[in-house]
Amino acid sequence: MDPTTPPSNTPDNAKPENRLLRDLTDAIEERDDCWIARALNRQHPADAADLLEMLSYDSFEKVVSLLGGHLSSEILIELRDEYREGAVEAMPDAAVASVLDELDSDDATAILEDIEDNRRERILDELEPGDRAQYKQGLSFDEETAGRLMQREFVAAPEFWTVGHAIDHARDRADELPEIFYEIYVTDPAFRPLGVVTLSMLLRAPRETKLSEMMLPLMSDISTGMDQEEVAYQFQKYSLASAPVKDGAGRLVGMITVDDMVDVIQDENTEDFLALSNVSSADGSHSVFDTIKARAPWLGINLFTAFIVSGVIALFDNVIAALVPLAILMPMISALGGNAGSQTLAVAVRAIAEREMEGPAVRRAIMRELLTGICNGAIFAVAVALMVFVWFRDPGLSLVAASALIATFTWACLLGILLPLGLKRLGADPAVASSVFVLTLTDIVAFFSFLGLAALFLL
Amino acid sequence: MDPTTPPSNTPDNAKPENRLLRDLTDAIEERDDCWIARALNRQHPADAADLLEMLSYDSFEKVVSLLGGHLSSEILIELRDEYREGAVEAMPDAAVASVLDELDSDDATAILEDIEDNRRERILDELEPGDRAQYKQGLSFDEETAGRLMQREFVAAPEFWTVGHAIDHARDRADELPEIFYEIYVTDPAFRPLGVVTLSMLLRAPRETKLSEMMLPLMSDISTGMDQEEVAYQFQKYSLASAPVKDGAGRLVGMITVDDMVDVIQDENTEDFLALSNVSSADGSHSVFDTIKARAPWLGINLFTAFIVSGVIALFDNVIAALVPLAILMPMISALGGNAGSQTLAVAVRAIAEREMEGPAVRRAIMRELLTGICNGAIFAVAVALMVFVWFRDPGLSLVAASALIATFTWACLLGILLPLGLKRLGADPAVASSVFVLTLTDIVAFFSFLGLAALFLL
Repeated sequence: MDPTTPPSNTPDNAKPENRLLRDLTDAIEERDDCWIARALNRQHPADAADLLEMLSYDSFEKVVSLLGGHLSSEILIELRDEYREGAVEAMPDAAVASVLDELDSDDATAILEDIEDNRRERILDELEPGDRAQYKQGLSFDEETAGRLMQREFVAAPEFWTVGHAIDHARDRADELPEIFYEIYVTDPAFRPLGVVTLSMLLRAPRETKLSEMMLPLMSDISTGMDQEEVAYQFQKYSLASAPVKDGAGRLVGMITVDDMVDVIQDENTEDFLALSNVSSADGSHSVFDTIKARAPWLGINLFTAFIVSGVIALFDNVIAALVPLAILMPMISALGGNAGSQTLAVAVRAIAEREMEGPAVRRAIMRELLTGICNGAIFAVAVALMVFVWFRDPGLSLVAASALIATFTWACLLGILLPLGLKRLGADPAVASSVFVLTLTDIVAFFSFLGLAALFLL
Repeated sequence: MDPTTPPSNTPDNAKPENRLLRDLTDAIEERDDCWIARALNRQHPADAADLLEMLSYDSFEKVVSLLGGHLSSEILIELRDEYREGAVEAMPDAAVASVLDELDSDDATAILEDIEDNRRERILDELEPGDRAQYKQGLSFDEETAGRLMQREFVAAPEFWTVGHAIDHARDRADELPEIFYEIYVTDPAFRPLGVVTLSMLLRAPRETKLSEMMLPLMSDISTGMDQEEVAYQFQKYSLASAPVKDGAGRLVGMITVDDMVDVIQDENTEDFLALSNVSSADGSHSVFDTIKARAPWLGINLFTAFIVSGVIALFDNVIAALVPLAILMPMISALGGNAGSQTLAVAVRAIAEREMEGPAVRRAIMRELLTGICNGAIFAVAVALMVFVWFRDPGLSLVAASALIATFTWACLLGILLPLGLKRLGADPAVASSVFVLTLTDIVAFFSFLGLAALFLL
């Protein structure tokens, strides 16, 4: 393609992405903006965005500045947050305004919400008054609500229309329709949605059929203020491809499509996944500083909880001094108990997220965890007792370790389910029950029971 | 509604689901199969399935037997695996056969794959030869591949057709079309897909436009043997609502829709989420026995790794005997180091799952984790040193704890990223790097460095 970057034959270049990446890196060094622009536009925007994200953040900034800030709107919207924000920052105001013009309103809002206030006003001033008002309204909804996520482009038709009427209308006003839509919303005179006609239904129905005769009832019930997690849940539950969004008065104001919901589902999953392992917010950022900022707070909390655990052990320092094997076995009781607690916690947090913890299922789950804790505790108590006996030839120590293990397992399993359920009842995010608390509280019980029993029976 | 179950006014009954659930429970006790059938069919199948899943498994089985095994196909397909399998088991063969008749082929395959071989043969024998052959072929694809997930109902048209031709054809053969589809695949004479025309494009184009002139290139590239995770990734990346599936010769044989992919995405997320916390396969099952089976193996592995950790501590028993504060502080170094390792592990596993660990991003991520480990290690080493000094007034112990913490953090962060990356390179699931290994290997370094430094400098 480009004479300055002949395809090389080293094994590292075997994958086409890697070759393309190497060519792109060369082109950046040579400041060959024509080659870069061509290479990016030749691919699907999602692939071009992936390629750019493989660059280090510094190289990515160089690409944006080489292109004079003119990254296509399709590529821009596919970039992940940090890269997109960086690109928009580097683009001239006019370029941002023209990108906004090309995008559906939900994507435009996603770009506008990251720009700092003064600049956003300046850019909005460059747009047509109608668009400006629409974007401002979009931004007036809270983040992570249906209002923010919806696009204002959708297709609605009054109930007395026929199939033929709808098709003719679509042909006449082809330019005004959203690029992609899966269904037509049938509305009453007050523009409240009454039902839905999917395009596949429209296609196979005779021209003279009335929309009101064929429409399906609305399965979803989404209003602008609804949390994105609830919206995603409705999409998943009812297998939706798109859904109408209503304002406070029940009037149709927007549409949400499933591709945006897939992104929401992934984001919510990432959030839970990381929260459970004590990482705040979206890590995976490009700088060490951001990474430390996302992790240090939880380590700080853990520092204090760990000192409390040490304080519990300190109560028994004379016991340990008299019987050093206790110090050798302590971490084992703690590790196994912590593991049992983490297992329960993960299952419980996941079940809550998937809404499997509703009504009587809660009581059943608590019973199941309690029994699992006791049974697994008993099984592993026997194993630990045997191994400790073989090692130290001290039946008393064996029994104490086994008893402490049963107590720790039972407590860990109960805690692993009650803590996230309690947080949920308090209206907090159950994933924030994160392992720090479960592990610390399990450690306290583990050490207290093990050392306490040892003090009572072994000294 | 039903005279035997008047709505009561206790606060517990405030939520409509709870009232409905109580009514259903009463109806089960009274063996009122008419009421149950009516209550289930009055709702959206997904809501009816949710209601049934709120019942304990035993009550659910009673409902199925009260209904004589006649659960509607729509409800059946919405039930989660264990309930669906149980229901199918309780249904007479003929009822299963008639359910299969009503479902799209992908849903039918999902039901057939859970039935044991002999019974499946019997049921297949009750079907038309054409259907039977189709289902058998569906089952011949590996589980969790595109072939298993695809439906055989889709709409294809030759390239020379016009928009009008396609619409007329759809109207003429309305009954044969799949209930829901979002696009038409344009094929060559060998039935290889050439491009795609979305229904929204079809709707707004003039009748005389040729499909070959307006079609979009195929973005996805899915063949029957492709792993479901890869298919879901393509849906997510290219924002697809549906995609064609090709056989080995490149011929169009099926279609996958986004609702199935949303389920796959959730399943894969659950799998990773639980694997990271040492829970095998899908837990959340209804019996304590299944729960123990999903968790005990990892606890068993942990039992052995914990004994290795205890063995490391045992090397230093004379040090602990001489300086008991070491035993008091040991769990603190271990807890903080384990936390740092878990954080890195969670971020790394998630980044791999979201395919953000490709090419040069890997080296950058390893560097970032290494630096984060050293920096967080240094920050918390200072904090630990101060707190230990205040507690024990022993500057040597302070310094030893701080040094061990830096070593442990650096090691934990490196391990947290290198272990999942290594597993990925070996072709294994990175989430199986699960915390057991990271925590154990971190403990070994924590105890070895802390007690080792103490032996060198404090005795």
